[in-house]
Amino acid sequence: MNSMYYGSIEAGGTKFVCAVGNEKGEIKDSIQIKTETPEITMPQVIDFFKNYDLMAIGIGSFGPIDINVDSPTYGFITSTPKLPWRNYPFMKAIKDEFDIPVGFNTDVNAAALGEATLGAAKGLDSCLYITVGTGVGAGAVVQGQLLSGLSHPEMGHILIPRHPDDAYSGKCPYHQDCLEGLAAGPAIEARWGKKGIELADKKEVWELEAHYIAEALMQYMLILSPKRIVLGGGVMKQKQLFPLIHKKVQTLLNGYLNIPEVTENIEQYIVPPGLGDHAGITGGLILAKEAYETVRL
Amino acid sequence: MNSMYYGSIEAGGTKFVCAVGNEKGEIKDSIQIKTETPEITMPQVIDFFKNYDLMAIGIGSFGPIDINVDSPTYGFITSTPKLPWRNYPFMKAIKDEFDIPVGFNTDVNAAALGEATLGAAKGLDSCLYITVGTGVGAGAVVQGQLLSGLSHPEMGHILIPRHPDDAYSGKCPYHQDCLEGLAAGPAIEARWGKKGIELADKKEVWELEAHYIAEALMQYMLILSPKRIVLGGGVMKQKQLFPLIHKKVQTLLNGYLNIPEVTENIEQYIVPPGLGDHAGITGGLILAKEAYETVRL
Ligand SMILES: Nc1ncnc2c1ncn2[C@@H]1O[C@H](COP(=O)(O)OP(=O)(O)O)[C@@H](O)[C@H]1O
Ligand SMILES: Nc1ncnc2c1ncn2[C@@H]1O[C@H](COP(=O)(O)OP(=O)(O)O)[C@@H](O)[C@H]1O
Ligand SMILES: [Zn+2]
Ligand SMILES: [Zn+2]
Repeated sequence: MNSMYYGSIEAGGTKFVCAVGNEKGEIKDSIQIKTETPEITMPQVIDFFKNYDLMAIGIGSFGPIDINVDSPTYGFITSTPKLPWRNYPFMKAIKDEFDIPVGFNTDVNAAALGEATLGAAKGLDSCLYITVGTGVGAGAVVQGQLLSGLSHPEMGHILIPRHPDDAYSGKCPYHQDCLEGLAAGPAIEARWGKKGIELADKKEVWELEAHYIAEALMQYMLILSPKRIVLGGGVMKQKQLFPLIHKKVQTLLNGYLNIPEVTENIEQYIVPPGLGDHAGITGGLILAKEAYETVRL
Repeated sequence: MNSMYYGSIEAGGTKFVCAVGNEKGEIKDSIQIKTETPEITMPQVIDFFKNYDLMAIGIGSFGPIDINVDSPTYGFITSTPKLPWRNYPFMKAIKDEFDIPVGFNTDVNAAALGEATLGAAKGLDSCLYITVGTGVGAGAVVQGQLLSGLSHPEMGHILIPRHPDDAYSGKCPYHQDCLEGLAAGPAIEARWGKKGIELADKKEVWELEAHYIAEALMQYMLILSPKRIVLGGGVMKQKQLFPLIHKKVQTLLNGYLNIPEVTENIEQYIVPPGLGDHAGITGGLILAKEAYETVRL
């Protein structure tokens, strides 16, 4: 038993990653668990953490979730299309087993916190983390805090102008051709008839993808003015996207944001994750640490 | 002489409003000054405030401005198209005359602060204020603080999908058909051949206008999740826009944000300014108060 560790849960739609580590993001132990029903998945999560005497646990969860501390359903997964998890009291399930502070936020907010604390935006009090994968999601650290308001952001579903040459109708069940509907991995596959990874050498695929991502980044920049933008997720493994996105963002803004980070050093402004695929799980450790410190105050 | 007052400057492209008042937003005296060159306008501003023994002055200025406290040009108006004001050290000009704390932010951030403190979003720690007038601008209070990052937001220039029936090309010199290019007062006038006020009874004008504003609000909501949205500026004097916008936001979101503020009580969520045309000048008083309290800490 070691009592200097935090627990972290990255709860995704296909798998849960659980880890035990410290506030430097050093991971001592971790496990992957398939996402099935809460009845099947959660006992495995709990068993894993039972091996440790933890100070706190941080959860970064798929959503939508309730992060409003004053709400009766605070800590719940809410209206998710994954029916077994709908209205699931995630935070309570952990608290009932471990009588320690629990931090709770979205998976992408956790990743943003990880990148801002220990990753590509380390030392900055502001960072936008975007994942382009099965869906598009984003989390933000603003003035040193995870962004929230009425609820957590849902940035993946913004509307963007369609490219005039793109005949694909879009894949979002709510909005059809929102950003996620046009640019997430499944949209790439549906438009071109192959998975992204098999299209690696098709220039037109990544030109169009960069166009849509750049349109979205332009909105995020104009609205949030983040100090750094971190792009992760499966689709961003296509590293040729980065220079295309850099150029398109500048073209779209057309000199409007006259800031050196944008006009001169955009390669250092829009970047891959510093923590690779560990942004979320690392962010969970930081969420745990923040929960621990808040309770101690 | 009375030493319990704050000064406030609302610096706009056509006029400056200067006021003296208290932290409750009660205004004791005010003046309007035409915006000419700094050499002509600023001495009148200074003369006005010389009549009072003020605790602090708050400035809400047209932009772009530098609000980065660590920057050598902090407190400057920067790359404005209004050439006499380009690279103008606004804050220093006031500080050189009055040795008191000075708060400095954008006109729309000041208005957002006014509405969040004493107006339509009073009591909330989050508010988005948007003006639709000669341009489109927005400011936001997020988790109790004015939103800033790399710089202040420039939300008026986001890209939105064009309405399929709208043949008007757009008026923004940077982006042509961004939000401001499609929906600000001058775009309405250019598209329909008459000023907005003369088009009051043309249903199709306000249907289209509401469509574009709703598209923009959807992005702001998904990205920032504000607790209330306040819509001001000349164009929003057309009060018939509000119910049209309410409906269109719900239609566009299509149930995606499953939050009662949006699905049930949207009339209380997207609202006119509580302070009428005084949001900006009131916000300047609050900026002054915050500057005063920060210095005293
Ligand atoms: N190397 C790759 N190149 C292009 N697309 C990829 C690559 N790896 C994964 N993807 C796509 O990304 C999506 C999966 O995203 P990922 O971030 O891995 O998982 P998730 O979003 O489910 O957490 C799939 O649509 C897949 O086709
Ligand atoms: N009652 C009104 N109805 C429609 N449009 C209006 C009305 N009043 C002003 N406008 C339009 O709003 C713009 C001016 O916006 P305003 O907010 O008054 O000033 P500014 O943005 O310059 O501070 C003009 O384009 C004008 O035509
Ligand atoms: Zn969508
Ligand atoms: Zn523009």
